[in-house]
Amino acid sequence: MNILGKNYIFGKRSAQGKLTLNSYNAETGEPLPYTFTQATEDEAREACEAAHHAFTLYRQISPDRRAEFLDAIADELDNLPAEFIEVVTQETALPEARIKGERARTSHQMRLFAEVLRRGDFMAPRIDTALPERTPLPRVDLRQMSIALGPVAVFGASNFPLAFSTAGGDTASAFAAGCTVVMKAHTGHMVTAEWVADAIIRAAERTEMPAGVFNMIYGEKIGTELVKHPAIQGVGFTGSLRGGRALFDLAAARPQPIPVFAEMSSINPMILLPQALKTRGTDIAQNMTASVVAGCGQFCTNPGMIVGIKSPEMSTFIAELTQNIAQSPPQTMLNKGTLDNYLKGLTELKNHPGVNHLAGEIEPGNRAIPHLFSAQPDLIIQGDTRLQEEVFGPVTVIVEVSDHQQLVEVLTGLQGQLTATLIAEPNDLHEFTYLIPLLEQKAGRLLINGYPTGVEVCDAMVHGGPYPATSDPRGTSVGTAAIDRFLRPVCYQNYPQFLLPAALQDHNPLKLLRLIDGQLSRDPL
Amino acid sequence: MNILGKNYIFGKRSAQGKLTLNSYNAETGEPLPYTFTQATEDEAREACEAAHHAFTLYRQISPDRRAEFLDAIADELDNLPAEFIEVVTQETALPEARIKGERARTSHQMRLFAEVLRRGDFMAPRIDTALPERTPLPRVDLRQMSIALGPVAVFGASNFPLAFSTAGGDTASAFAAGCTVVMKAHTGHMVTAEWVADAIIRAAERTEMPAGVFNMIYGEKIGTELVKHPAIQGVGFTGSLRGGRALFDLAAARPQPIPVFAEMSSINPMILLPQALKTRGTDIAQNMTASVVAGCGQFCTNPGMIVGIKSPEMSTFIAELTQNIAQSPPQTMLNKGTLDNYLKGLTELKNHPGVNHLAGEIEPGNRAIPHLFSAQPDLIIQGDTRLQEEVFGPVTVIVEVSDHQQLVEVLTGLQGQLTATLIAEPNDLHEFTYLIPLLEQKAGRLLINGYPTGVEVCDAMVHGGPYPATSDPRGTSVGTAAIDRFLRPVCYQNYPQFLLPAALQDHNPLKLLRLIDGQLSRDPL
Repeated sequence: MNILGKNYIFGKRSAQGKLTLNSYNAETGEPLPYTFTQATEDEAREACEAAHHAFTLYRQISPDRRAEFLDAIADELDNLPAEFIEVVTQETALPEARIKGERARTSHQMRLFAEVLRRGDFMAPRIDTALPERTPLPRVDLRQMSIALGPVAVFGASNFPLAFSTAGGDTASAFAAGCTVVMKAHTGHMVTAEWVADAIIRAAERTEMPAGVFNMIYGEKIGTELVKHPAIQGVGFTGSLRGGRALFDLAAARPQPIPVFAEMSSINPMILLPQALKTRGTDIAQNMTASVVAGCGQFCTNPGMIVGIKSPEMSTFIAELTQNIAQSPPQTMLNKGTLDNYLKGLTELKNHPGVNHLAGEIEPGNRAIPHLFSAQPDLIIQGDTRLQEEVFGPVTVIVEVSDHQQLVEVLTGLQGQLTATLIAEPNDLHEFTYLIPLLEQKAGRLLINGYPTGVEVCDAMVHGGPYPATSDPRGTSVGTAAIDRFLRPVCYQNYPQFLLPAALQDHNPLKLLRLIDGQLSRDPL
Repeated sequence: MNILGKNYIFGKRSAQGKLTLNSYNAETGEPLPYTFTQATEDEAREACEAAHHAFTLYRQISPDRRAEFLDAIADELDNLPAEFIEVVTQETALPEARIKGERARTSHQMRLFAEVLRRGDFMAPRIDTALPERTPLPRVDLRQMSIALGPVAVFGASNFPLAFSTAGGDTASAFAAGCTVVMKAHTGHMVTAEWVADAIIRAAERTEMPAGVFNMIYGEKIGTELVKHPAIQGVGFTGSLRGGRALFDLAAARPQPIPVFAEMSSINPMILLPQALKTRGTDIAQNMTASVVAGCGQFCTNPGMIVGIKSPEMSTFIAELTQNIAQSPPQTMLNKGTLDNYLKGLTELKNHPGVNHLAGEIEPGNRAIPHLFSAQPDLIIQGDTRLQEEVFGPVTVIVEVSDHQQLVEVLTGLQGQLTATLIAEPNDLHEFTYLIPLLEQKAGRLLINGYPTGVEVCDAMVHGGPYPATSDPRGTSVGTAAIDRFLRPVCYQNYPQFLLPAALQDHNPLKLLRLIDGQLSRDPL
């Protein structure tokens, strides 16, 4: 494919700026033979204006037609040639099988949102019929449904160049909601972004979506222009706490503040319960190691903290985990910046009072060696921030607590998380049931006997959680409930049938389940 | 009743501070014979800690039991004696019939949320069953439902001392969601607040809710302590743009930012279409006047702007409206501060270039005289802020536009609104259908041939809208959808039956409609 390196604005390509960027081979660190032109402030503004213009048209396109658009994107992604897979692996050092799997996940995600659009329940229709005879005052006819929020700015993640990026969950849920998108291409995989953006544009043209339904700009700091632009009505972000919080602060400081869903930092506590350690400690040490080093630890749901009660079995577990981690081979990270941050985090942990280094060396080169630390429970209980913020990479920290009470104190001391996991035998679950209400308040997803890496794309998934896991615990960025972030309710009072949206018309042409006078029903009125 | 004037903390009364406040007779301006002790910072903190402690218990109380609590509050409110009605009229200058009506609305609101709890759909259960045979990877069992967000700080409104205050919509929806509450009593009606708080406390004790489920503090600026306290996880506010934005900014600047739903400023445009003016201009002028002066204009949904296309009928309408407004009698406002703000707003409008004064005098005394202004359309088109911010009181501004195009430009220039209304004959609606998509983007509630004052409490209501109408267009503070502001989703992965919440158990003991593998069903699994 011909990589132009120009910004995507209103269905056209634009490169007015003088600053250029390169993409790099993640293995070698060498620049790839493509040049990308950073968007100027004018171009960033034009992209937002394009999204605004397209929004007035796109939001009125029927859910069925929007579903065709999403399905077309999925088909375009599935049909990308082997050359595409190759370039993604070059840019990210992620193996071919992983990229193929992630591509399948990304197109599945688009098709799942197409199903949501055809199912229609996201519109959440509610009707309170007129009560002209009611005393002391009659009631007028009132009908509510959810409509699109407005143009959305999307910032993708480095670690999922497909599933959490250009055509990822934020873009898919925004499109499904009826929102247009301005994407800030991740500088870590700009060639990938261009391939995917082209796929989206082809799908938009093929299904006759308005120009400007999808826009994308390249650049380092230009993304802040998107968040500040008055046309933008919502933000989706996946990345670091620092980056996400900066965008959140910018959005909150606008003359008109806008909602931001930023998925940021989580250490995903794993709680090892005594019977499980007794019964299958060696297995747990193996599986835990696999989860910690999977994808070089570059997952938001990577288990960054392991908590267990002091016991001979816990000591054996720690010894085995130490050995497993020490024997895990180094892997290439996504890019130099990711590796630098990993090494910085490791150094901080090494120098942190109350933290012991158990396994892993820091060596020169571009590969990351898995590490294991242990930490004093008091650090968590007293709210130490270094231990609470994730170190992105193949590292985890063991916290040995003295008893039930200290276990509760440590879990209480934790900040918000994407996930919290119990590794437990049935007896454990009966004994430690009291932990679950505590974990419910800490995390968006609660697991028993599983590992949090591997986030299923489905209706019931929650990839969210209290701060700093995300900037708003009421949302999720994976699964079909992600659409709710980009919807708002509108009420029509005393509207005649011909002016009502189909979802709210008496004869229920979309066959939706509706809340009518307090009863759920698919009946016409 | 014995008014103690002490803060409500953890089911007890506390008055550690030295600062005291008085409540005033709104008619005479004389202090009422009660003294209220402003909460100290320590007391504000204790109130938040009480709400946090109670939350760990209250959130686990079943929806049915929470419904009993809400019903008990409703009963307590309905059973308050004539002395209560009298004191509310004294504090607010609102007439007895209005207060009785508002009390009925407030207890109805509590009972409606009790129905929501019994219906159970607010939990939004979703189940994706395990697919152990799926390739390349099996799917584990995943179940999602909505749970309570956390303790909520509530700031009531002066203009609805019952329905938007101590036991108002924010408190009701927070309680329904499973959240505990710290109320900042409105200084404009502290005696009323104490009566209502006592009613809530009696209901909580009678239904055996945990101490601290409801807390309330008195004071002028102490409310900011609630928003800053780490235990508080959400904020509900009804009041001015300045006050709401200040709390929003405070919440966004916390180490852990929290969601704020602030209902603030709306001028509720009324669009008069030509056929309607021709057919019934005189009636419209009468009904419009009634809506503008109702409750002395002290409604969030008061029509603050009237837009029509220049025509002989529009000129006649303006003349008639001018006469009607000029003849409307003065009324006592809620308090001196409200009157001062009204007079300040009037003076600003009078001195504003491009604005003409049509009716109403400013006279000394404590009563508000209705006013009418007209303004050049260009002011709105160019984003003038004085015209866009509501002047709270019985005043409205007429904007005459030259044609369809200027009508669109004016409506496009408007900021976010709670409501937008078309006054129209059937022919008008066919001719001006194109306005509706524009209005959908501007307001939370769209009316045809009605007046926005009078907000029905029901399932389909939206009392919300884009900024500055509210701080988050995705919420509503009236109607049962208000509960969503105080809920967050949680996903249970691979949880055994006995550890799942009832809403997610296989046999569906709550008989909920659930999204199971993409299909809505009440069937057990």
